[in-house]
Amino acid sequence: MRREAIPCGAIRVFAPASVANFGVGFDVLGAALDGPGDHVSARLTRRAGIRIVSISGDGGRLSKDPAQNTAAVAAEAVLRLAFRAKTGAPGIDLWLEKGRPLARGLGSSAASAAAGAFAAATLLGVRSRTRLLRPVLLAEHAADGSWHGDNGFAALLGGFVLVEDSDPRHVSLPLSLPFPDSLRLVLVHPELELPTKVARAVLPSSVTLGQHVHGAAALAGLISALYRGDLAALGRAVGADALVEPARAPLVPGYDAVTGAMRDAGALGWALAGAGPSLMAISEEGKIPETIGRKAVAAFRRAGIAASASVHRIDPLGARLI
Amino acid sequence: MRREAIPCGAIRVFAPASVANFGVGFDVLGAALDGPGDHVSARLTRRAGIRIVSISGDGGRLSKDPAQNTAAVAAEAVLRLAFRAKTGAPGIDLWLEKGRPLARGLGSSAASAAAGAFAAATLLGVRSRTRLLRPVLLAEHAADGSWHGDNGFAALLGGFVLVEDSDPRHVSLPLSLPFPDSLRLVLVHPELELPTKVARAVLPSSVTLGQHVHGAAALAGLISALYRGDLAALGRAVGADALVEPARAPLVPGYDAVTGAMRDAGALGWALAGAGPSLMAISEEGKIPETIGRKAVAAFRRAGIAASASVHRIDPLGARLI
Repeated sequence: MRREAIPCGAIRVFAPASVANFGVGFDVLGAALDGPGDHVSARLTRRAGIRIVSISGDGGRLSKDPAQNTAAVAAEAVLRLAFRAKTGAPGIDLWLEKGRPLARGLGSSAASAAAGAFAAATLLGVRSRTRLLRPVLLAEHAADGSWHGDNGFAALLGGFVLVEDSDPRHVSLPLSLPFPDSLRLVLVHPELELPTKVARAVLPSSVTLGQHVHGAAALAGLISALYRGDLAALGRAVGADALVEPARAPLVPGYDAVTGAMRDAGALGWALAGAGPSLMAISEEGKIPETIGRKAVAAFRRAGIAASASVHRIDPLGARLI
Repeated sequence: MRREAIPCGAIRVFAPASVANFGVGFDVLGAALDGPGDHVSARLTRRAGIRIVSISGDGGRLSKDPAQNTAAVAAEAVLRLAFRAKTGAPGIDLWLEKGRPLARGLGSSAASAAAGAFAAATLLGVRSRTRLLRPVLLAEHAADGSWHGDNGFAALLGGFVLVEDSDPRHVSLPLSLPFPDSLRLVLVHPELELPTKVARAVLPSSVTLGQHVHGAAALAGLISALYRGDLAALGRAVGADALVEPARAPLVPGYDAVTGAMRDAGALGWALAGAGPSLMAISEEGKIPETIGRKAVAAFRRAGIAASASVHRIDPLGARLI
């Protein structure tokens, strides 16, 4: 941590980690996680352009090249939004503090993107979060080449979001879905790396019309469960994915044993967190979520894989000034 | 009408017509229509088996063979449910009054099935509607060889239903979705016949993963719109289908002109009603629904096709004793 390098005149922003997909909500559902996330400190400079002054918490793995970093790409897009003419535009210095290990399916690049966009917007007086959707989407695109706002919009807006469309040409505010206060997400993190492009490569390129109908109905049931506050139905729907989860499960050693342990411990449903390798279980507040985490970690260890677990509420706020 | 042939000791049941699919809800969404539907009168007999005494309102087209008629197939299934041993079981006489022209995508066979099941259940003291789901599903299967409960469950239960699973081995109660009181469905009926098997034959056998994601997200948006009571979002979601509607639209001469007229008249969304050829528009109570119907009929007529239109609320009750 190099927090001492941040000048006292800088603002400081937080954006939460997030989890996407929820099984049947592949590429369209995201939720912000209470607790972990990224901090971005920022200040305006006279020198034009975005500069990353320092990155901490990444183990030295992230590049400080602004074109390679989602916080900087998002901040740059907000800057262009506020100053269409390049002349006269200020620059922004960024200090990025990563709060989570990378590549665990918890929206690490998305948290940076949302924090970078929100920090720049705060400095430049851009008050509408809707205007930050496209900068976040552009930043996520820079990170992995695909267009999807599920993690980024959850990190920006907080709560549970349904991203109906991630086309950058007409991006619109995602739907904020209700969720019961008693909902807990158990995240289990194996010490494995699973690059998103590997997890994407195993996906089927097409599905039968019947599989589509079944999958769409399961997502419809998930949405209804959120509105009704029915955690058991939410869990069943999350676990009903027959398209993406079966293709990706073999990429995570111990998947069957770990999800079996989650089920035995009382999980209402489970799925890969985002593209994995972390796993997520649906549970209700109380002692069961901790038990699910402990049993899942033990199951990973029996498969020879170190793991850790954490229990989360949904973060309702998204990106915010600290 | 041969109502004079029905003995005064018989009970009389009504089940509503219904509309299924709603574009992106292909094969999983159904809603009961206030107004049209089928009546079934029924009484127990000492002679075993189901007998159809008369059918009216069908223009002489329906068979009185109990194996060929959904009201009789559903009643037979309820009879088997109540009397597992064949010996000692009574029989049931049925008088069927069809309330709608056939093959217009308005759940004609489903209304008969729901009315037949409910009539038999009333006579035999079967009180749970959940137990009637499988009989209705079996009857619909007898009609067209496929397994889908979208129309039949809407006719049985009323309201707006999400049928997540139509597998007869483990059929479960569909989700009843909320809907705004101000919702009106405009049904436009061209004088065309479009057998369901023809409408099924043009469907794509598979879709890309991206098309699946887009379609599932649109259905998710539709479900959310119903819970929020957002008619404009409901209409947009209904009109967002890119999988089934484009394949079937060419089967309905005048489709583009008629849906264009609906849009110009203020429809919030539109789609084929079930497998067509009837079309359905989403609107809000007031004068607009009547205008949509009138303009759509005029557009069909300009295409050389006679048509009629009707405006409906959702029927909240489903099958019931009259």
